[in-house]
Amino acid sequence: VKKKKKDFSFSNRGKTLEDELNETNEYYLHLGLAVIHKKPVPVQIVKVEYPSRSAAVIREAYFRAPSTTDYNGVWNGRYIDFEAKETENKTSFPLKNIHEHQIHHMSQVVKHQGLAFMIIRFSALQRYFIIRFEALEVFWDRMLTGGRKSIALQEIEDIAIEVVPGAFPRIDYLPVLKQF
Amino acid sequence: VKKKKKDFSFSNRGKTLEDELNETNEYYLHLGLAVIHKKPVPVQIVKVEYPSRSAAVIREAYFRAPSTTDYNGVWNGRYIDFEAKETENKTSFPLKNIHEHQIHHMSQVVKHQGLAFMIIRFSALQRYFIIRFEALEVFWDRMLTGGRKSIALQEIEDIAIEVVPGAFPRIDYLPVLKQF
Ligand SMILES: [Mg+2]
Ligand SMILES: [Mg+2]
Repeated sequence: VKKKKKDFSFSNRGKTLEDELNETNEYYLHLGLAVIHKKPVPVQIVKVEYPSRSAAVIREAYFRAPSTTDYNGVWNGRYIDFEAKETENKTSFPLKNIHEHQIHHMSQVVKHQGLAFMIIRFSALQRYFIIRFEALEVFWDRMLTGGRKSIALQEIEDIAIEVVPGAFPRIDYLPVLKQF
Repeated sequence: VKKKKKDFSFSNRGKTLEDELNETNEYYLHLGLAVIHKKPVPVQIVKVEYPSRSAAVIREAYFRAPSTTDYNGVWNGRYIDFEAKETENKTSFPLKNIHEHQIHHMSQVVKHQGLAFMIIRFSALQRYFIIRFEALEVFWDRMLTGGRKSIALQEIEDIAIEVVPGAFPRIDYLPVLKQF
């Protein structure tokens, strides 16, 4: 729903991270490499009108907090589950961007031998990182025990895998999963 | 959104199959047996109001056709994907209840070594069946090649696994997956 209109790249004007990942997933699906979809935005529907001879119209609905992550699916026999986050920050990723129930969800996924991770876009820097949940959790726990409320870019450079954006696919994250 | 209000069981008055499966999945999640969620209903949001001091209200939106299935998640290291369908029919399951893109999606899941299946409730009979996608596909192909447009209950009894509904969990489908 919310679209950021910032032109941060000649070839990729105004695209949100969600746009980029949807394109990437379509590419993977088309080539038979993986079946990974964005989950619909959860809404609480209150009022629906049924005009005669036309489609039902939702007239009152509210956004609900997502109880899980943005994307899931299957690749190479593995369950894949990830959250995508963008930040305009240039030096760190603020952990307030992540909901506690998303951490809880990813932790359960890992317990059941799924692959859980986060894709972060530093929009102003045009840099993309993939952080396994197991690494993310360390910084989350650091915050919970009184430490800093963000992950420094330099820490991310150390523990995450950087993906250089391309044309097709835009954010080629599947090769990274092989390194997990 | 649509709720069937038929009382078909003393202990389970008016519950839709979706209600029953959501309860079952909550039970599994709570006991750490599996992480399986219903996907939100996909809606196309056209107009949103932002009243001051209160939550955003969606004022115009439309239901979109789901491109995948109702439920997915992870169990025992496997990717799980299924569609839930109810019918009031007492002798057969009409295949028009299934969308072609759902068949296509399940077929892709199976290619990537996920487990794909359908849970059918014969509401009037209070009977529940789990049909693996590989078995369902045979009947789908029969229809495409000019055969009948439904699966006879007796055929379902032969090729599906029946689940007897219980209290906790309501529809205990995980043990069935071990037989796949
Ligand atoms: Mg996100
Ligand atoms: Mg359904």
